[in-house]
Amino acid sequence: MERFTVEILTVGNELLIGKICNTNAQWLAQRITRLGGMVRRIVTVPDSLPDIVQALRDCLSRKPDFVLTVGGLGPTFDDMTLQGVSEALGRPLKLHREALRMVEEKVEEMKAQGILKKPWLTPEREKMATLPEGAEPLYNPEGTAPGVKLQAGETLIICLPGVPVEMKAIFDLHLEKLMAERSKLKYAERGLFVEGIPEPDFSPSIDEAMKRHPEVYVKSHPKGGEATSKIELHISAFAPTLEEAERRVEAAASWLEAEARRLGGRVERLG
Amino acid sequence: MERFTVEILTVGNELLIGKICNTNAQWLAQRITRLGGMVRRIVTVPDSLPDIVQALRDCLSRKPDFVLTVGGLGPTFDDMTLQGVSEALGRPLKLHREALRMVEEKVEEMKAQGILKKPWLTPEREKMATLPEGAEPLYNPEGTAPGVKLQAGETLIICLPGVPVEMKAIFDLHLEKLMAERSKLKYAERGLFVEGIPEPDFSPSIDEAMKRHPEVYVKSHPKGGEATSKIELHISAFAPTLEEAERRVEAAASWLEAEARRLGGRVERLG
Repeated sequence: MERFTVEILTVGNELLIGKICNTNAQWLAQRITRLGGMVRRIVTVPDSLPDIVQALRDCLSRKPDFVLTVGGLGPTFDDMTLQGVSEALGRPLKLHREALRMVEEKVEEMKAQGILKKPWLTPEREKMATLPEGAEPLYNPEGTAPGVKLQAGETLIICLPGVPVEMKAIFDLHLEKLMAERSKLKYAERGLFVEGIPEPDFSPSIDEAMKRHPEVYVKSHPKGGEATSKIELHISAFAPTLEEAERRVEAAASWLEAEARRLGGRVERLG
Repeated sequence: MERFTVEILTVGNELLIGKICNTNAQWLAQRITRLGGMVRRIVTVPDSLPDIVQALRDCLSRKPDFVLTVGGLGPTFDDMTLQGVSEALGRPLKLHREALRMVEEKVEEMKAQGILKKPWLTPEREKMATLPEGAEPLYNPEGTAPGVKLQAGETLIICLPGVPVEMKAIFDLHLEKLMAERSKLKYAERGLFVEGIPEPDFSPSIDEAMKRHPEVYVKSHPKGGEATSKIELHISAFAPTLEEAERRVEAAASWLEAEARRLGGRVERLG
């Protein structure tokens, strides 16, 4: 009854200049958690080959069950994730027949829609079908660049594109089932909103709740600064069955509710 | 004319279960970029001491000018960032007089507002004033836990609370001036929206733009999947003066506009 472990490696300068928020990592973390996995680390590196190679090696050294890379699969000069995987593992890049077929299929669709005007098999498109040795392409229903799947020791490396709609589609199509089968645990959660008790005064109660319910995790989030005395509590648990997971979080949530009232706070359940 | 480097280490299980998006990292990355800094890595680890210690050591091994930690400064058992800094650097935790004065001041405010009901110097509050040896507290105008500043070799470590309003207040009050002085570069950016050209067909033009304007960085983001042929271009540059930075991005933006029209695309400037 062991949770599988995941590290997420997001690649892209746009994340490091703060142009966008890493919603891809959040979406993946949420899905993986609900599938019974444990995301142990999220790392963001620039579109720079040495950074990708070093970060990927660091991830692999911790031997997670999965490493998910996000971004850098496209056609431009700064899409270099697959080159990074190739260098980190010492597996040369090769044009992959099945991946090329997937790219061709997308090109045919675009031709049919009248989008394409130029000779299609440009070096840029060929690049998207050039994978590290031993890798398999994952069909991308929403774009040209296929995802990539590659076993490295005990770790399954999955490379996803950075365009959210493409990333999600590949996850849904290929990874959801894989992860749900890998895990045998179910997940449940509750939210409580406590008002009128400063967080430092409520934190002994949180510690006590986790001592009484060691299989439950309680995280407190002060809202709007400590002086407002508003705390959001997030209570979560895994269990072999959904019923058991629900029973566990409910027991801890009820105890914390009673405790907050005992200390003079107001409590509300969150949706 | 060298940009200073920053690594951001965000701590918190809520980020790894996807409960929230890492908007703190995005906000910091945006501010640091505009102050002339370069964020080289964003790392998220769980509320786990060995993970914090290992990640912090990894950050320090790359010798950035700054490491910013975010989160884990509060009173609860799972706030362990300062313990992590202490272990990573081998500097014991000690009750800090000035930090304790800051915590006391906040407590007086809360007493005056009638929020406090219990004896105030709980172990939880003392913890927030217990810093690694050699550290200085940074006054937190929005909450109890002070920020922390600590030199480690060539790197200045700054520990910020995870509550966004507190993190931002400490950044504005203490770090903005420090970083602006450290950097002598100014930053400018432009956005272009190009429609009607698939990204792989436009990417040679992007490469060409960066060859013609090597001091400018152009990043392309396909919007809504490749088949829609919509691309957002982000064009940015640093220069010793704001005028020069503006001139550089404008030159590259104008060239790309003309190029997109030449290829039959529609172009729009983004705000």
